[in-house]
Order: sequence, then structure tokens, then C-alpha cells
Amino acid sequence: MAEAQPRGVADSRSSVVRLMVPTDANFMGNIFGGAILAEVDRVAYVTATRHSGLNCVTASFDRVDFIAPVHVGQVVEFDARLTYVGRSSMEVWVRIDAEDLSGGGKRLVGNAFVTMVAVDKKGRPLEVRPLSLTTTEERQLFAEGRERMVLRRQGRRAERTR
Amino acid sequence: MAEAQPRGVADSRSSVVRLMVPTDANFMGNIFGGAILAEVDRVAYVTATRHSGLNCVTASFDRVDFIAPVHVGQVVEFDARLTYVGRSSMEVWVRIDAEDLSGGGKRLVGNAFVTMVAVDKKGRPLEVRPLSLTTTEERQLFAEGRERMVLRRQGRRAERTR
Amino acid sequence: MAEAQPRGVADSRSSVVRLMVPTDANFMGNIFGGAILAEVDRVAYVTATRHSGLNCVTASFDRVDFIAPVHVGQVVEFDARLTYVGRSSMEVWVRIDAEDLSGGGKRLVGNAFVTMVAVDKKGRPLEVRPLSLTTTEERQLFAEGRERMVLRRQGRRAERTR
Amino acid sequence: MAEAQPRGVADSRSSVVRLMVPTDANFMGNIFGGAILAEVDRVAYVTATRHSGLNCVTASFDRVDFIAPVHVGQVVEFDARLTYVGRSSMEVWVRIDAEDLSGGGKRLVGNAFVTMVAVDKKGRPLEVRPLSLTTTEERQLFAEGRERMVLRRQGRRAERTR
Amino acid sequence: MAEAQPRGVADSRSSVVRLMVPTDANFMGNIFGGAILAEVDRVAYVTATRHSGLNCVTASFDRVDFIAPVHVGQVVEFDARLTYVGRSSMEVWVRIDAEDLSGGGKRLVGNAFVTMVAVDKKGRPLEVRPLSLTTTEERQLFAEGRERMVLRRQGRRAERTR
Amino acid sequence: MAEAQPRGVADSRSSVVRLMVPTDANFMGNIFGGAILAEVDRVAYVTATRHSGLNCVTASFDRVDFIAPVHVGQVVEFDARLTYVGRSSMEVWVRIDAEDLSGGGKRLVGNAFVTMVAVDKKGRPLEVRPLSLTTTEERQLFAEGRERMVLRRQGRRAERTR
Repeated sequence: MAEAQPRGVADSRSSVVRLMVPTDANFMGNIFGGAILAEVDRVAYVTATRHSGLNCVTASFDRVDFIAPVHVGQVVEFDARLTYVGRSSMEVWVRIDAEDLSGGGKRLVGNAFVTMVAVDKKGRPLEVRPLSLTTTEERQLFAEGRERMVLRRQGRRAERTR
Repeated sequence: MAEAQPRGVADSRSSVVRLMVPTDANFMGNIFGGAILAEVDRVAYVTATRHSGLNCVTASFDRVDFIAPVHVGQVVEFDARLTYVGRSSMEVWVRIDAEDLSGGGKRLVGNAFVTMVAVDKKGRPLEVRPLSLTTTEERQLFAEGRERMVLRRQGRRAERTR
Repeated sequence: MAEAQPRGVADSRSSVVRLMVPTDANFMGNIFGGAILAEVDRVAYVTATRHSGLNCVTASFDRVDFIAPVHVGQVVEFDARLTYVGRSSMEVWVRIDAEDLSGGGKRLVGNAFVTMVAVDKKGRPLEVRPLSLTTTEERQLFAEGRERMVLRRQGRRAERTR
Repeated sequence: MAEAQPRGVADSRSSVVRLMVPTDANFMGNIFGGAILAEVDRVAYVTATRHSGLNCVTASFDRVDFIAPVHVGQVVEFDARLTYVGRSSMEVWVRIDAEDLSGGGKRLVGNAFVTMVAVDKKGRPLEVRPLSLTTTEERQLFAEGRERMVLRRQGRRAERTR
Repeated sequence: MAEAQPRGVADSRSSVVRLMVPTDANFMGNIFGGAILAEVDRVAYVTATRHSGLNCVTASFDRVDFIAPVHVGQVVEFDARLTYVGRSSMEVWVRIDAEDLSGGGKRLVGNAFVTMVAVDKKGRPLEVRPLSLTTTEERQLFAEGRERMVLRRQGRRAERTR
Repeated sequence: MAEAQPRGVADSRSSVVRLMVPTDANFMGNIFGGAILAEVDRVAYVTATRHSGLNCVTASFDRVDFIAPVHVGQVVEFDARLTYVGRSSMEVWVRIDAEDLSGGGKRLVGNAFVTMVAVDKKGRPLEVRPLSLTTTEERQLFAEGRERMVLRRQGRRAERTR
């Protein structure tokens, strides 16, 4: 099946810049974490769907760290790339940077790892094409992604048996 | 300081029911994970602020699992309660249930653990009142929350030294 | 018909807490009455649909009083319960309380009585299951609700004959 | 004070047409009553502020009847005019008409009576300029508005003494 | 075909007043041009659909000038009328006025010329009824609209051959 | 003044990808032109502010062509770059491409030229740093942008003297 040809990380990498407006903020002017995660989810969805060519749903947000607060008037960049692809699940790493438009450059404000699963109309998992790896960084991220998945499964099992 | 008197889990527990509308859905009628997380973040913020009486920001989403898809027209209930309170951080567990209005009862669709931090106007952490525990379930959730925090710190340290 | 078994007030009672954000406010920081009514309508819809298991539409907002202004940053709780159920119409009382997150407790800010009607796909009224009453308060609210409905019908008739 | 010169009904009359989009609808394609009331509140606010030149807040929605359902794709017209002006409160009648864009003309779908109050920055009532009446219809609407206000006050008093 | 009877400019003229809220503004309190254009597009769509009775899509925004800034709390009026009607395209002129509610009257803040095209379900152009002109101003606007269309076509041709 | 050092086109180029959701569509599933222009305005604002380091407002949308319709579920990419910089005004070209996520590649759906002006807090124009040009394409776009500005000024003058 031609569809199943592996694709590279760069083929589905997606980037969004978004100006944070008062709608996204609480009454202190801090952007809600939820407003950022809504954007993270959308860009992860775009990346997973671009790679697989299939309809995808969010299975989990595995770790989201907000390193620095984001304020109204800043431009936030969401850079999403695949790190790990299993049989039907895909891990997307979204790096979040913020920038004051008045200068000062970009600054890392957060990281998120989102697991998306390709599904058919009834919600059953579908097999996705493999991810072809070309750089050393890509290989390392893939190994770390696989490790995270194993840990997550162990974590869930541990929880169930506790 | 009277403000620092411990408060119980029930004092800050917050519940939201929300009807999912087409705005929240992708073109397949599935509700975006991001739309759900935006609501999770808001109810966790309410719970953390109710407990502390201080302004709070989201530090991390530690584990979010979407167990079943959510559809347009369902009512989703977000039930947020504190599990663990440290010096300035609070872990909020948000249990997410969905219900078809035409009957069939509620069904667990997801769980999220959100860490909120109380901060002053310059974003520096503030000490929050302790959490008083009264039931066995509360004590167990507190112990698990403390364990998750230790694991997260170890995870970050491991990452930095890798 | 099993569907037509009466249900109690508690079975369909629905509660929403919502953090008021700048989006909901005019430029003085006061929350628009319309933003509150949009939420009132949604929670009344949830309550009426939970009771009837049928699709419902809003027939009228019979009396809405805003007792105190609501501000950005407050948490508003909407508590909806059935007061009166006729053949196809249901009266829902939504009590609206606001709370400063920095402490001070909840305060009644408004009340609304919404009449919802169960309809089929062509918009024709459908019969709904009766409401079973168990407490004295429920019986009193039911009698008042019936009285309000009679007054509304008289009001409309008076208007037509004037 | 020049500001206190009476103004006519036509001076503050305000009209809004709005295309109803899927965002405003439930999953059956019916527009939420709440979406319509949010618009009613905004246009009533515009009318009351135009008349008084002062900041206004919504005091009550006194009677809202939805005569016919509104659907996605229809254009809804909200026509707001003052009916009664007391010392600091103003009653605004909003007539709601819907129109299929594919032809067939406008159709009355609802009526709402909104009471707005002019307030200072601390929320205390401010005196508003009188309403000058020129047509027979304006005089009749004013008399009916005054009657509604008396009935509302009696209704509230009756409720308190019950 | 009765449908093809010409209609006058007044038959499809549409007006919207909208209160600008913080959601529409950047962090300086200036309303985004994009928020204004979104409203311009909607009212132009209403006008073109009212005239043609057909589904319309936006073909181009031919010239939009923002003459003065718009601020949160102002009421903006969008007055849309047809200027020129070709075989399947309609030019709509939207005049944009802003008004401080605290007095001072309306002030022209912008003008936009939007070309809408009537299309069938596959997006193919459909013929629209002619525009009947009755006043001298309408005839002048029609001539200017036709001139703009010729210039736009020349502009596009010049661009392609450069 | 160090701030006034010229900057290249690449330094302020900004790209946004956005998944079009039902909120952005009319009831035929076509994305509103206005929803696209709102995004165009935001990305043009980001580009102009990045270049100038100053607060910018939209002066005009000079020509917007919608070449093909955009549908719910497509990913739209907005690629904004400076073409011409005058004393205080900047012309931003936004190229709009749409992509079906199920494959088939990107397709040009529109182009827009937006003029932004840097202003101080009172809305008075501020001088902006020059644009340094390095490629042949950049020089050609600059020349065309200057030509468009001259034509626009002539167009306005012709209009005034007519």
C-alpha cells in the first residue's frame, strides 16, 4: 500500500504562531494554561493527521510543563514534531516559545508531549505508516519517546494493581 | 495568621457541568481534547484559588488520559478536588465524566492531574495553607500525589543529567 | 411506558460553576447580563433534558432579577432545579450565586425562571414524565410554579384583549 | 444641566441584524435562547446608554417570550426602543424578528422587556433624563411600561410577605 | 422567472450596530482591523444573499480603509448596500461609523468594498437578478462600482503579463 | 539609534497554520471570508510589530482575493512577509494556502496586501526602521509595493477631485 510508505519527521512538522489576546487571559493578565493547551492540541492534531493521512483523536497529554508565564500581547510559537510512532499511536512533542513583540527574542515557556491515535469512524485504532528517522536527534527523541510509552504503560499497570 | 488555617478537601471541591456544542468539535463531531483541557484548567484554577485565597498559575498538567471520546450534545462533568498540597504548589485531580442527555447515565471519559502554584504579582511562589485530611480516601490520594511529585522531580533531574 | 415513570427534583438538578473572564465583561469590568443569561439557558436546558430525556427548547424567561453586579474574576454558580412540570412544559429555577475567590463566601446575585418545552424534530410539543415531589419545599415551589404559569397565561390573554 | 434635556424614543432606538451561525446552535440546529438573550442584552445596553449618556447595568429581564424557533442560517433582527423611563431605570422593549435569506420575509420570533439602570462607578443609581413622547403608540407603550413596573414591584412585595 | 425581477438597493440594505468588547481588542485597547472585517464580511453576506436569494461567497475585499481607530466601549455601525451588480457578482459598500456612547455623535471610521458571488452547491457561479436604480446617488455609485470592477480586471491582467 | 538599524524580510516573516473548525463556517460548510481576514490581520500585525518593535494599527486592506473556497477540516497556512516599508507604513503580503489533511498537498486559496502603520499612544505615526533587501525577489516585491502605494494615493486623490 503506497499510503504506508514511511515519512520523515520534517514532512509533518507544523508550526503555529499566535498573538495572545485578552480573551485568553485571567484578570491578572496571565494567559490561562488551558488556552495554551487548546492550541497545543490543535497543532498536535495537525501533525498527526499530516503524518497518517487519517482521522486522529487525542489519547493523552503525557507531560506538560509551563516553565514561564505567558502574557497578553506576546506572540507564542507552537512547534510540533513527531518523536515516536507505534502501531496506531503517535507521540507529538510541542515546544512552546514566547516572544515580546517589542524585542528581546524568543524564550522557552513550555513543553508538551501529546499522544494521538489514528481511528476509524467507529473509533477503532488504525495502523499508521512508520516514521523514517534521518538525524541523530530524531533517533534520540524516538528512543526517549518509546521509553516514555513503556513507563506510561508500567505506570498504568502499577496503578491498577495497587 | 488566620488565613493559614488548614482547610478540608470538600471546602474547595468544585464541579462544572458543560454541554458540549459544535464549537468544541472537529469536523467528525468529536470534541477536541484541547476544549476539554481548557475546561479542566479553569476548574483546577477555581479549586486552587478557593483553597489558597491567592492568585494561582498552572505549573504543569502531569497526566491526562482520555479514556473514551466525547461527542457534541453530551454533558460533561468536571469534578475537581485537591489531592496534595505542598509549600506553594497544589495538585488538583479533575475527574471527567460524560453523559448522553437521552439517558444511559454518566461514564468516565478522562482524568487529569494539574499542578497549580500560588504566586504574587511578580510571579514568585507564595506559601499556601495546609490541606486537612479527614477520610481514608483523602489520605491515600494525598500519599499518591506526594509520590507523583517526587517522581516528577526525579524525572526532571534524570532528564537534565542525561 | 417505562420512560414515563416520574422522576424526582434531585435526579435532574444541575450545577455549573464558571469563572467570569474579561470576555464576558463590558469596559467597566461588569459582567454582561447577557453572558449570565446564556449560561442560565444552558444549565436550564441540561436540567430539562435530563428530566425528560427529550430534546427541549426555551419557551420563555419569565422573570430574571439581577440582585447584585458580577465582576471579572468572580466564580459564579448556577444551580438549576425543576419547580413545576406540566404536560410538555417544565419550569426551571436557576439560582445564581457569586463568590470572590479571595474569600468572603458566596452571595446571591440573581434568580431566573426559565420555561422549557420538550419538542419533536418538527418542533411539536411532546408529553414529558411527571415530577415526583418528596420534600415540603419541593411541593411549595411546585405550587408557586403552577401559580406563575396561570398568571403568565392570564397576562397573555389580558394583553390580547386589551 | 443641558445633559438632562429630554430625548425622544427615536434618538436612542437601536437595531442589530445578526446572521445566526453554528456556534449559536445546539446539535439539532436550533439557536439557543441564551445566544439570543446575549444579543438582546447588548442592544438594550446600547439603547439605554445612548439615551442616558451614562454607564448602565441590567436590572432584570422582565418577560421574554420565544414565539418561534430560530435556525442556523437565518438573519435575526433585534429592534430596541425605550418604552418607559423612571428616575434611574429604563425599560427597553426588544422586538426579535427572523428572516430566511432565501426569501419569505421577516417573522416575529420573540419579544423581551429589559430593565436597565444607570449607575456610577460604585454601582449607585444615577438620575437619567426624561423620555419625551411624541406619538400615540409611544404614550401607550409608556403607560404599559409603567404598569409593568408597578406589577413587578407588587410581585416582589407579595413574594416577600408570603 | 419571478425570482429574476430586479430589486432596489433599499430592499437588501442591512445595518448592524455592535458594541466593541475587550475580546475584539489588542492589549492597547484598539479594536483589531480583523474583528471589524469579520463583521463587514457578515453584513455584506447578508446584503448579497438578501438581494439574490442564493448562497453567496466572498470573492474579494477590494479596498478597505481604516480612517480612524476604534476603541473598546464604542458602538460601531456597519451599513451595507449594493453598489454594483454584474452577471453573478455583487459589489457591496459597507460604511463603518463609530460612536462613543457617552455622546459626541457618530464618526466615519472606515469604508470597505466587498465583492460577493452567488454560487451553487459545487461552487459554480449563478446568475443573479439585476439591481434597479432609482436615485441619482445609486446611479453614480453603480457607475463607480462598474469602473472599479474594470480597473480590478485590468490590474489582474497587468499583473499576469508583467 | 541602534533600534533604527535596517532589518531583513526574513527577520519578521511570520507563519501561522490553523485548522478551520465549524465555528468559522457558514451553514454550507464554507469558511467565512471574514474568519480568514481576522487571521490575516493578526499575522500581519505580528510581522509589522516584529519589524518595527512598535505598536502598529491596520491602515488598509488593499487587495484581498479569494481564489478558492476553504472548507471545515482544512489546514490553512498564512505566510506573512514585508514587501514595502515607507516612513511609518509597512505593506505586508499574506499568502494563504489550504491543505486537506487527508493528503493532496497545499493549494493557493488567497492573497492579501495589508498596510500597517506604527503609532504612538496617541495614534500619531512613528518612523520605522528601513527594510534591507537581499534577494532579487525581495527587490521586485518592494518595487511593486511602492507602485501599489503610489496607485492607492492617486486613487484616493482622483476620488476626492471627482
